[in-house]
Amino acid sequence: MTTPFYERLTTAQRNNDSLVCVGLDTDPSRLPASLKSRTDAVVEFNRKIIDATHDLVCAYKLNLAFYEALGDRCWDTIHRTLQYIPQEIVTIGDAKRGDIGNTATMYARSMFDDYQFSATTVNPFMGKDSVAPFLVDPARGTFVLALTSNPGAKDFQYLRFNKKPLYEHIAARVKKWNTKKNCGLVVGATRPRELQRLRAIVPHMPFLIPGIGTQGGDLRSAVRYGCDKQGMMAVINASRSVLYASAKDDFADAARDAAISLRAEINILRAKYFKK
Amino acid sequence: MTTPFYERLTTAQRNNDSLVCVGLDTDPSRLPASLKSRTDAVVEFNRKIIDATHDLVCAYKLNLAFYEALGDRCWDTIHRTLQYIPQEIVTIGDAKRGDIGNTATMYARSMFDDYQFSATTVNPFMGKDSVAPFLVDPARGTFVLALTSNPGAKDFQYLRFNKKPLYEHIAARVKKWNTKKNCGLVVGATRPRELQRLRAIVPHMPFLIPGIGTQGGDLRSAVRYGCDKQGMMAVINASRSVLYASAKDDFADAARDAAISLRAEINILRAKYFKK
Repeated sequence: MTTPFYERLTTAQRNNDSLVCVGLDTDPSRLPASLKSRTDAVVEFNRKIIDATHDLVCAYKLNLAFYEALGDRCWDTIHRTLQYIPQEIVTIGDAKRGDIGNTATMYARSMFDDYQFSATTVNPFMGKDSVAPFLVDPARGTFVLALTSNPGAKDFQYLRFNKKPLYEHIAARVKKWNTKKNCGLVVGATRPRELQRLRAIVPHMPFLIPGIGTQGGDLRSAVRYGCDKQGMMAVINASRSVLYASAKDDFADAARDAAISLRAEINILRAKYFKK
Repeated sequence: MTTPFYERLTTAQRNNDSLVCVGLDTDPSRLPASLKSRTDAVVEFNRKIIDATHDLVCAYKLNLAFYEALGDRCWDTIHRTLQYIPQEIVTIGDAKRGDIGNTATMYARSMFDDYQFSATTVNPFMGKDSVAPFLVDPARGTFVLALTSNPGAKDFQYLRFNKKPLYEHIAARVKKWNTKKNCGLVVGATRPRELQRLRAIVPHMPFLIPGIGTQGGDLRSAVRYGCDKQGMMAVINASRSVLYASAKDDFADAARDAAISLRAEINILRAKYFKK
């Protein structure tokens, strides 16, 4: 894996004409009855979702919390899921790690060398030396949390220092750290004005935008301000609205329909704002 | 496990007359030659360290990064290590998780229900709903990152909002979240004045203090300002300076000597500042 990360991402977006990322946050308790009894139920479910959507997405994102909850099957389930994803699709290990230098190095090794994710998410709270170990390889992307889509985002992310909220300070710092062009930001889609301000600070950086679908984010703003000037670089994640579009055995067909709709909605907005 | 967390911690501190926490951040590449070839080398090393130190500590802390780097042996290694730790000693799963509500719930389940740690560390960046799922059970402790001991702490933790640095805002918030008396703070020992200010904001809360030993923190300040008025509630962590006190087969004896010295140094300071 040696293609620079930004190139890898834009190639994936062009190939499938898609900014959609499907979040494989597979909850064993929400699997259809026909799969539930299998010991590899999560792998089987993920494979069917991947079969049904791999020509419609630029990325898959695995939130590691859902896999760690599987206990001793965690490692194997992640590996087998990743092996099934076509090489040209970006894989994001959503772990939001943040720890001091030598520990961050261990986490980076785990995400990139062991699991072989093409990108990950990190928490910037502990500063540069907690993020730097993730930025060593230009082929591996790192999305730094800037502004999140949950209610608790208000507790600290909006605190203002020199008239600018914390998340803008983070964006400005990440811009400096981005010497290998492999940084991105995580930006909650539910906050359009903030998205616009952040895009102004880092015009070319990929934005991973959760909060679409079940969380109720604003898709219009996600496209308009989440994209760069070419209408690219936004990675718009939907998890539950795709995975659980149907709770029955037709879940894969329903997931495909949901992904087709989301891609189309996004592409209509891209055509409108970016004259594609 | 139903004893309230603060009581559990102070009982452990009293039983062994110790504020020492040994960080079982076991790096396979640093094991003595006689263990290296074994497939369960990390478990075996941890057991010998526990045998040598369990009457000298109030807690053991496992940094999960070191275990995740073991790949498919992660889960088993953590479980077997925890099973070997005497019930009355506090176990801290140092994972610094931080994610939105439903994901935080998965992480909390993993730390407390699956691994059965008696406490964990969390990252407050995403705010209250990312921390709340960890605070459900009064018997399980949660140490929230406030001020860390690494150089990158300066990047964001010292930014001032309304004349107070971010870490003081965090301490004030955690004080409000602490309705079940199971919250603590992670406070880097290398910054004595900040430790003093934080202790003034939350006079009774446990402080997990890393940065002693290899990281070069100031032990005097850690004791003087890290403790409550009874000379308790500071949990002073040392990892490498204990684990790797000797690189040879006498590592367990050397670890015991290092733990004895650290406990004694701390207790001399406690006697001085708290008239024990």
